[in-house]
Amino acid sequence: MIKTLGEAIAKIEPADAGAMRRAQSRQRNLTKPPGSLGRLEDVSIQLAGIFKTERPSINGKAVIVAAGDHGVVAQGVTAYPQEVTAQMVLNFLSGGAAVSVMSKQLGVSQYIVDAGVASDVPAHPDLRVVKIGRGTDDISQGPAMTREQAEEAILAGVNLAIEAANSGADLIATGDMGIGNTTSSSAIAAAMTGKSATEMTGKGTGRTPDELLLKAVVIQKSLDVNQPDATDALDVLTKVGGFEIGVLAGVALGAAGIRRAVVLDGFISGAAGLIAYGICPAVRDYMFASHRSAEKGHRAVLSYLKLRPLLDLGLRLGEGTGAVLAMTLVETAAACLSNMATFGEAGVSDREDEQVLTSEPS
Amino acid sequence: MIKTLGEAIAKIEPADAGAMRRAQSRQRNLTKPPGSLGRLEDVSIQLAGIFKTERPSINGKAVIVAAGDHGVVAQGVTAYPQEVTAQMVLNFLSGGAAVSVMSKQLGVSQYIVDAGVASDVPAHPDLRVVKIGRGTDDISQGPAMTREQAEEAILAGVNLAIEAANSGADLIATGDMGIGNTTSSSAIAAAMTGKSATEMTGKGTGRTPDELLLKAVVIQKSLDVNQPDATDALDVLTKVGGFEIGVLAGVALGAAGIRRAVVLDGFISGAAGLIAYGICPAVRDYMFASHRSAEKGHRAVLSYLKLRPLLDLGLRLGEGTGAVLAMTLVETAAACLSNMATFGEAGVSDREDEQVLTSEPS
Repeated sequence: MIKTLGEAIAKIEPADAGAMRRAQSRQRNLTKPPGSLGRLEDVSIQLAGIFKTERPSINGKAVIVAAGDHGVVAQGVTAYPQEVTAQMVLNFLSGGAAVSVMSKQLGVSQYIVDAGVASDVPAHPDLRVVKIGRGTDDISQGPAMTREQAEEAILAGVNLAIEAANSGADLIATGDMGIGNTTSSSAIAAAMTGKSATEMTGKGTGRTPDELLLKAVVIQKSLDVNQPDATDALDVLTKVGGFEIGVLAGVALGAAGIRRAVVLDGFISGAAGLIAYGICPAVRDYMFASHRSAEKGHRAVLSYLKLRPLLDLGLRLGEGTGAVLAMTLVETAAACLSNMATFGEAGVSDREDEQVLTSEPS
Repeated sequence: MIKTLGEAIAKIEPADAGAMRRAQSRQRNLTKPPGSLGRLEDVSIQLAGIFKTERPSINGKAVIVAAGDHGVVAQGVTAYPQEVTAQMVLNFLSGGAAVSVMSKQLGVSQYIVDAGVASDVPAHPDLRVVKIGRGTDDISQGPAMTREQAEEAILAGVNLAIEAANSGADLIATGDMGIGNTTSSSAIAAAMTGKSATEMTGKGTGRTPDELLLKAVVIQKSLDVNQPDATDALDVLTKVGGFEIGVLAGVALGAAGIRRAVVLDGFISGAAGLIAYGICPAVRDYMFASHRSAEKGHRAVLSYLKLRPLLDLGLRLGEGTGAVLAMTLVETAAACLSNMATFGEAGVSDREDEQVLTSEPS
């Protein structure tokens, strides 16, 4: 059990450069034209760096879906009522939500977390209750939470990731649920990347141009009122964040600390990724961007994190759906690197110029 | 067993419009904002049309990997020696190739087919030998094969697809192996789409600008010498095609005839898709484009077929690798449509404007 943020950060080492070099060299000897598996080759090399071996294998996958409410819904920024957050938590637990159906289909363990839902969610054996608060305060009026709560949320995520890893997960996906959380995520993204509120404001689950305009105004106001300090990611989380976003930032930090790969879902997970990266830049070595969300600000978030998404399917649901889908690609990338035959093993003739490459020092 | 091309074509019906309408209506009632699963929703609706039900489920997946040699390699268009085709067939059978590793990882049955390898491939219990010939003739000098051979290749593919379907495959992926087959595919793509040889020529597994230029010249020569008739896809296959390409065109036609979904791999499978579409346009209702290949002409092929690729990972290996990866997305799209809870079932509050939608006639 990790008890302080300092302890969590101290555990995070950069990716292993030697294993990455050996993986790159192994890729060149596998029975295919060099580079012909495209992005999967890059993914496999990153995995080698994470798992410190040129033959990584993924034996378990988990998605941690954190739910929290947002006081800013009082400003009318969303189309759905706040009670939907709690209702969807029940839907995750009963297996009816998109992420639940996908997780079952793709062999992914689901961790459902009440990070700070406004109401009491009925007890359920599969529900983890960390409940940092009953929804954040309205960020357009003042800070979302206290600095202590922000740290508490992150530590809860760190320890959830460690629990998932200890239960066998090598890939850990982040997922979110929270009516109003695109507003908070846009504020985080604007604060951390230095882009304007308007550039970071997408429609979330909203409906009309008027709602979108109102949302941008509310986001700008939350930045003006709180003046979050971009050089202090914990301050940004405190001022304009959310409990579930803090937990997911912690999941990324915790997974990296125990050398597991983190697969980020869309915009809200990206905002959590920004917080984690602000706290400890080395965490990025462990991150994969699962997909490019249809949500407007996501592109800027990925570009800031220098992550290229694996999928671009116009998803904008959250819950970890994009991350669960992409985990299969990451897993398959590892399998190809580790289990494909080399030219020598298979007795396949290599093309002439490759003789040079295969005799390079590895 | 289908014995004539006419018989194969007669079995192909268009997708079921009623099931697609019901699927669309069901999508609107599932517990998520409408449209938030992006492309997966489109995929699920197409599956409803294929399987004639608004709750399709995918219970088995197969990839049919057809291998064939190409006489045009005599012109120096490729970097690898022709013997690699047969060597890779053995590599598929022993599980060392990329498509084999992926198929094992993702629960896909592999059908390995000698459609026309130049040499004798050693017998193996899992190898289907249809061997239309020992490699095609050099298309830069005359037709690749006879019209009878072209029809024979297609019928072999039709019957392989039916066999895979009868063994439980609801999704059937196409895969290819054949040194020299990007040259043949470029010639097919140029002939069918009306684009120039240069526009359709990518580097395949080649290395240098000089090789690329030579390849474009050879492709143009094969078109000039053979004058394939774009209004007669069987003529195009005869003149500039390949045995494995004919088999894969047949796989698409056979799968459509038995109402199974076809997941096309990259450029060579795309060329096979063009032939199948030329023979029977309704086959397109059953097709999914798995990915956008790094091979230059693929974009034009997909655009001609009006198919949008699901993945864009810079793959350019063939073998069915992109298709096997994408089948998981297609399968998951079906699972979400069929197994997610509706707002009513889950007791989740819908947003107000959706009340209108849910009461629409379905």
